[in-house]
Amino acid sequence: MKLVTFSHRGRTSIGKVEGTRVIDLAAADPALPATMRGLLAGGRALLQRARDVDPERAPAYPLADVRLEAPVPDPAKYLAIGMNYGKHVVEARRAGVDVPDSQVWFNKQVSCINGPYDPVHMPRVSDKLDYEAELGVVIGTRCRHVPAEQAREVIAGYLVCNDVSVRDWQRRSATMTLGKSFNTTGPIGPWIVTDDEVPDPLALTLRMRINGEVRQEARTGEMIYSIYDQIAYLSTVMTLEPGDILATGTPSGVGAAMDPPAFLKIGDVMRVEIDGIGHIENRVVAEPA
Amino acid sequence: MKLVTFSHRGRTSIGKVEGTRVIDLAAADPALPATMRGLLAGGRALLQRARDVDPERAPAYPLADVRLEAPVPDPAKYLAIGMNYGKHVVEARRAGVDVPDSQVWFNKQVSCINGPYDPVHMPRVSDKLDYEAELGVVIGTRCRHVPAEQAREVIAGYLVCNDVSVRDWQRRSATMTLGKSFNTTGPIGPWIVTDDEVPDPLALTLRMRINGEVRQEARTGEMIYSIYDQIAYLSTVMTLEPGDILATGTPSGVGAAMDPPAFLKIGDVMRVEIDGIGHIENRVVAEPA
Repeated sequence: MKLVTFSHRGRTSIGKVEGTRVIDLAAADPALPATMRGLLAGGRALLQRARDVDPERAPAYPLADVRLEAPVPDPAKYLAIGMNYGKHVVEARRAGVDVPDSQVWFNKQVSCINGPYDPVHMPRVSDKLDYEAELGVVIGTRCRHVPAEQAREVIAGYLVCNDVSVRDWQRRSATMTLGKSFNTTGPIGPWIVTDDEVPDPLALTLRMRINGEVRQEARTGEMIYSIYDQIAYLSTVMTLEPGDILATGTPSGVGAAMDPPAFLKIGDVMRVEIDGIGHIENRVVAEPA
Repeated sequence: MKLVTFSHRGRTSIGKVEGTRVIDLAAADPALPATMRGLLAGGRALLQRARDVDPERAPAYPLADVRLEAPVPDPAKYLAIGMNYGKHVVEARRAGVDVPDSQVWFNKQVSCINGPYDPVHMPRVSDKLDYEAELGVVIGTRCRHVPAEQAREVIAGYLVCNDVSVRDWQRRSATMTLGKSFNTTGPIGPWIVTDDEVPDPLALTLRMRINGEVRQEARTGEMIYSIYDQIAYLSTVMTLEPGDILATGTPSGVGAAMDPPAFLKIGDVMRVEIDGIGHIENRVVAEPA
C-alpha cells in the first residue's frame, strides 16, 4: 500500500493511492481513524483493514485534485543519523567535521516537517541552505530493546526525506540541533510505502537532483549502519512509537562539500527520488515576511 | 495557578492545586479540555476560565489521593540548553567538553518524559547516570521571531526539571542526543506555576539534593543566556508551540565533574527544588528486565 495524508476542499484525511486515485480510507470504513498516527497505532490489524478497503466501492478522488501532506505530519519523534555513508564521511572530514566511532543521532524538530511538494524557506538569517537526500523509515510498532535481526518487524514502511540543513547554524554548536530544525526544512513523502511492498530496503537507489542535475546518488546498502542497526541502537535507549520517523543518512554530494561550496539559491528545485518508493520535490523560496 | 495533570482511579485529567486539594478542571467546566496541551492551546481565555473555576463548587480530590503525572506528558518538543551557567561551563571545560560561543541546544526525546515522583531507571547498558537541576519553561503561545524583550509574553509558566543524563552515551557523539534521551530520564513537575504568580523568573533559586545533600545551588539570574534570550534564539529558527518545554540549563555541581566522579547508584534519591515553584523527587532503580 501507498499510504497518504491528504487534504481535499479543506478536509484532511488518510488514504491509499491506487493508480491515479486516492481512496479515502477514513470515509470508507468508520473503524479507520483520520490520522496516520492513529492508523499506525492500530498495528497490523488496522493496516489489513485499510488494505481490504475495496477501491471500487470507496469514496475516492483523482490524485491531481488532492493536496498531499506530509504522510505523518505530527510524529512524536523525528530523528536523523549523520555520517552514515562512507564517501559522505570522507567529504565531511575534509570539511572539518569530527567523525566519531558510533552512530551520531540528532533531532529534526517535528515543527520543521513539510509536505512533499511544498516550498522550503531560505531563512532570513542565513544563505547557507543545503540539501540531503535520505531514505526515511516509519516505525509501526511500539518497541524497546529490538535486536537488529528483528528490527524489520517494527517497520511500518518507507518514505522519501530531504534533511534540508542550514550549515552555518548547524556548525554553531556540535549538537547540530538548530541548523537541522528551521521551519519547512523537513519535507517528507509523498507517501509511506508499506514494508510488504519493498523487497529489500537495503537495495534501494536514492538520488538528489538540483534543478535536474544529479548531485547525490547511492544505494541504501552502502550505509555504514544499516537501518536495522539503527533501530537496534536507538531502541537500546528509548521506546520507539508508531509514526516515529528515522532519516537514515545521506550519501556524498551535498552542496557544502563541493569546491567551492554550492549552497541553494532562491528558485532552486530539489528533487529526491528513491526508486521503488517515489519522489518529493521542493522549491526554495524566501522566508515570508 | 498551579496546573497539574493527574490521574485518579485510572482516569487522567487536568486540575489546579488549591492548598491540599486538586480541583478537577475538566470535570468542573465542560469547556475545559482534559489535556494540558489542549488547555494551553486555548490561550489566555481558557486559562482565565480555569482560574474562574470555583474550588468550593467543583469536583476535587485530596492531593494525597491522586497521582501527579508529568504536567505536559506529550509536548511536541522538549529542548534543553547546555553550558548555560558560568561555573558549570568551567567544570565542563575541565572535563574536556568543547564549549562554543553560542547557545547549545539539544533534544530530550519526548518519550523520556517522566512524572515528578516516579522512578528513574539505571540503564542496563550504563552505570554513568547523572543529574542536572534545571528551571523548565512551558510555552503558552504559538510564536516565531519573538524579540527577547517580548519573550515573557509567550511563556505559560514554569516547572522543575531534572535533565538526567547518561554520561558515557552523551559523550559517544557530539550531538549528545542519546545520552539525554533514555526512557524515564526526563522527570518534570510537579505542576506548572503560571507566569502571573512568578514575580521574576530570573530571580529563582534552584537546588539539587542527592540523598539530602546539596550538590547544586544557583540563582536563575546566573544564566549566561537568560530564558528570554533562549526564546528569542530558538524562535529565530522554529515555531514554538503551546506545551513545548525548554530546560534552561544546569549550574555547576554535577556528579561527572566531581573528583573523583560521583555517578548515581541504585537507591539514590534526587530531589530538585526551585523556591517558589516546587520540587520533584525521583529514586534511581534498576531498569526492569
